[in-house]
Amino acid sequence: MNKEPIRIGIAGLGTVGAATLGFLINENARIAARAGRALQVDAIVARDRTKDRGVDTSDIRWFDDPVALAKDDGIDLYIELIGGADGVAKASVEAALAAGKPVVTANKALLAHHGAALAKLAEETPGASLHYEAAVAGGIPAVKALREGLAGNGVTRVSGILNGTCNYILTEMESTGAAFGDVLLEAQNLGYAEADPTADVGGFDAAHKLAIMAAIAFGRQIDFASVEIEGIESISSEDIAAAKDIGYRIRLLGMAERTPEGVSQRLRPCLTPIASPLGSIEGVTNAVMLEGDAIGATVLVGPGAGGGPTASAVLADIVDVARGNTPPTFGIACNDLIQPENGKTIRDIGAFYLRIALEDRPGTLAEVAAALGQEGVSIHRMHQHDHTGNAAPVTIVTHICDLSAIERSKTRIAALPASVAPPVSMRIVES
Amino acid sequence: MNKEPIRIGIAGLGTVGAATLGFLINENARIAARAGRALQVDAIVARDRTKDRGVDTSDIRWFDDPVALAKDDGIDLYIELIGGADGVAKASVEAALAAGKPVVTANKALLAHHGAALAKLAEETPGASLHYEAAVAGGIPAVKALREGLAGNGVTRVSGILNGTCNYILTEMESTGAAFGDVLLEAQNLGYAEADPTADVGGFDAAHKLAIMAAIAFGRQIDFASVEIEGIESISSEDIAAAKDIGYRIRLLGMAERTPEGVSQRLRPCLTPIASPLGSIEGVTNAVMLEGDAIGATVLVGPGAGGGPTASAVLADIVDVARGNTPPTFGIACNDLIQPENGKTIRDIGAFYLRIALEDRPGTLAEVAAALGQEGVSIHRMHQHDHTGNAAPVTIVTHICDLSAIERSKTRIAALPASVAPPVSMRIVES
Repeated sequence: MNKEPIRIGIAGLGTVGAATLGFLINENARIAARAGRALQVDAIVARDRTKDRGVDTSDIRWFDDPVALAKDDGIDLYIELIGGADGVAKASVEAALAAGKPVVTANKALLAHHGAALAKLAEETPGASLHYEAAVAGGIPAVKALREGLAGNGVTRVSGILNGTCNYILTEMESTGAAFGDVLLEAQNLGYAEADPTADVGGFDAAHKLAIMAAIAFGRQIDFASVEIEGIESISSEDIAAAKDIGYRIRLLGMAERTPEGVSQRLRPCLTPIASPLGSIEGVTNAVMLEGDAIGATVLVGPGAGGGPTASAVLADIVDVARGNTPPTFGIACNDLIQPENGKTIRDIGAFYLRIALEDRPGTLAEVAAALGQEGVSIHRMHQHDHTGNAAPVTIVTHICDLSAIERSKTRIAALPASVAPPVSMRIVES
Repeated sequence: MNKEPIRIGIAGLGTVGAATLGFLINENARIAARAGRALQVDAIVARDRTKDRGVDTSDIRWFDDPVALAKDDGIDLYIELIGGADGVAKASVEAALAAGKPVVTANKALLAHHGAALAKLAEETPGASLHYEAAVAGGIPAVKALREGLAGNGVTRVSGILNGTCNYILTEMESTGAAFGDVLLEAQNLGYAEADPTADVGGFDAAHKLAIMAAIAFGRQIDFASVEIEGIESISSEDIAAAKDIGYRIRLLGMAERTPEGVSQRLRPCLTPIASPLGSIEGVTNAVMLEGDAIGATVLVGPGAGGGPTASAVLADIVDVARGNTPPTFGIACNDLIQPENGKTIRDIGAFYLRIALEDRPGTLAEVAAALGQEGVSIHRMHQHDHTGNAAPVTIVTHICDLSAIERSKTRIAALPASVAPPVSMRIVES
């Protein structure tokens, strides 16, 4: 066993960086015993040198420039916790890899946008490797479970609740009946949502994670550009209540599937049964479901964000590096990764939820049923909810059909004289 | 990358062995791409050479003796799927390790009884390593999550539903109201329980898995001998119904915890809330909950047995070996493992469930409350169930107390003139 210490450089001392630094200093002996090597935090980059981070950093070298730290000969392992798809985060990771160093990062945007090039650089440079357990689902060891634990499987589907902010908002909307905007404001006040919430509620953060998992799952070049993304901004409390009435919850699900036309990658609100593995997840918790030909299915649940949990993932990568566990970035050699089928349309086949508001007079439901029938959409269940006033809310669960037929049906229904508001549809995911 | 093929020898072609062999032959290219090495099944041991296993084995060498196969110079990796704590399983694993080969095994009994010596042999022999993902919770990558994914954590508790047969029986008892014996018989007919069910329903199989996880979690010499084991044979349908009445389910839980007196390892039926991560697990499914100072908690759910899922775990170990990921058997060097505190009593502090059958006359409940009070046990909730006849069933949920106080209280209560049957108690685990 190589007993030389691993000299670690950390760039970025925000919540995750500070937590990682704290564990590496306060629990050094314990973690080093697991790593089989001494671990020494040798250099740091952070904006504010004077801030009290609860640990003694007087023996640690401070850098102003992450790229300089990444290249520094005194550093054996570079940890990037700056964030952002480009800028110094990218430049410093490239510099460290090019210098033949292992890199640990929590940066999902960087991986989603530049993972292909970075994986190639890591593969081509002796000594370099790229580790990013913290980039997907925080503390849950999802990357490890997929890239290593399911390495023998032909993966059929990867799905999950990949953004705690969205799941918190949806959970609160259900329990309080409040509207999206009000719950978002509350989440911002509590620190569960950013001042600019677009990355979270727009689905982009979760889509980054989905693209990473899809690349590993299907041995496919990472392909963030073709992830279909829909956020939770337009989810109404009416839909949440209507879904609950028929036994479902609305969850922002990421789902990548092997289909006859290729790999689909979709990130959008779906209905899933209240008691299902993903439907039962409440609050800021994340969950990842992995399905394959050998295992069937396994579900991993845990904290998707926060200093401690994300540091847990960073530390796991550090121990992997120290133990010499450096698998290919996406599980197989870069040249063996399947190329994305750019621009190809991947059909979306499944059951759908439709919510329609109709004038409350005889014959309107028959008109809706006829509109669906004309597009080949057959009805599995139909439910008319209690209502006051003249608009009768109707929810429909369809049998399996193609999303395009649902879209055409919605156009027909919206054009009916009895239609009071535009129909809403969402995919149903039974498990 | 070393492009020489890894020559694999498999001993034991039961359900798991046949499934593993099938994947290694039918999906060879896919798995080899993940492994970064060619994988070649070179030799097999099985009782019956003529049985159709659905794959062409004509190019594979057959051995009669697992030890001879394990030692054979033509084999680089030995896979032990024979089972049993001793005999040829143990002898062949020792032979392979002594010959400097990596070993993959699904044998939880072998690890639980001889893990300390085998880990030492693996550590002392260049080239040898011991992999056993399949020994714990079937397809769930629980060993990997704990030994690698949580490597940065100070683990505080490991718990889980580790035996699918028991969970199936408890689930069926709840949904049908049937007695243990009847459900066991049905499980045997369906193939979910063995003809001799002792290893499963007596808790021993799950206790093996708990001992393995506790060793990794706490960096402690494996210590099966001190696992406190209680099976599900004496669980009555009355207890299952009474637990449900107050919002709980009875689950056979394995739980290893860091306590002020040392590491506790307990495998026994407990009450846990119906909606909790472990209480919500139904049927043959397994679940593992891992708690640590960095991550908080993560829960992994999946199939705990069966050919495909267990083969998934075996294949993950094979890919790990091919990729060169060979961490220490229990996560740290053998000499650094803490020695068990043999014979030390570890107090069991928690809330408890008590079920008491009393004559239905005034004053009896007061006598019970007095008996509990005399032992310092205070009552959190008390519930008298509907009943016909003269025996009134009463369930009590205590506040946090010591199990020894519960035991003394039960003795006092059993001695009351109003007591109709011996009191039953179980530990409550809130999450």
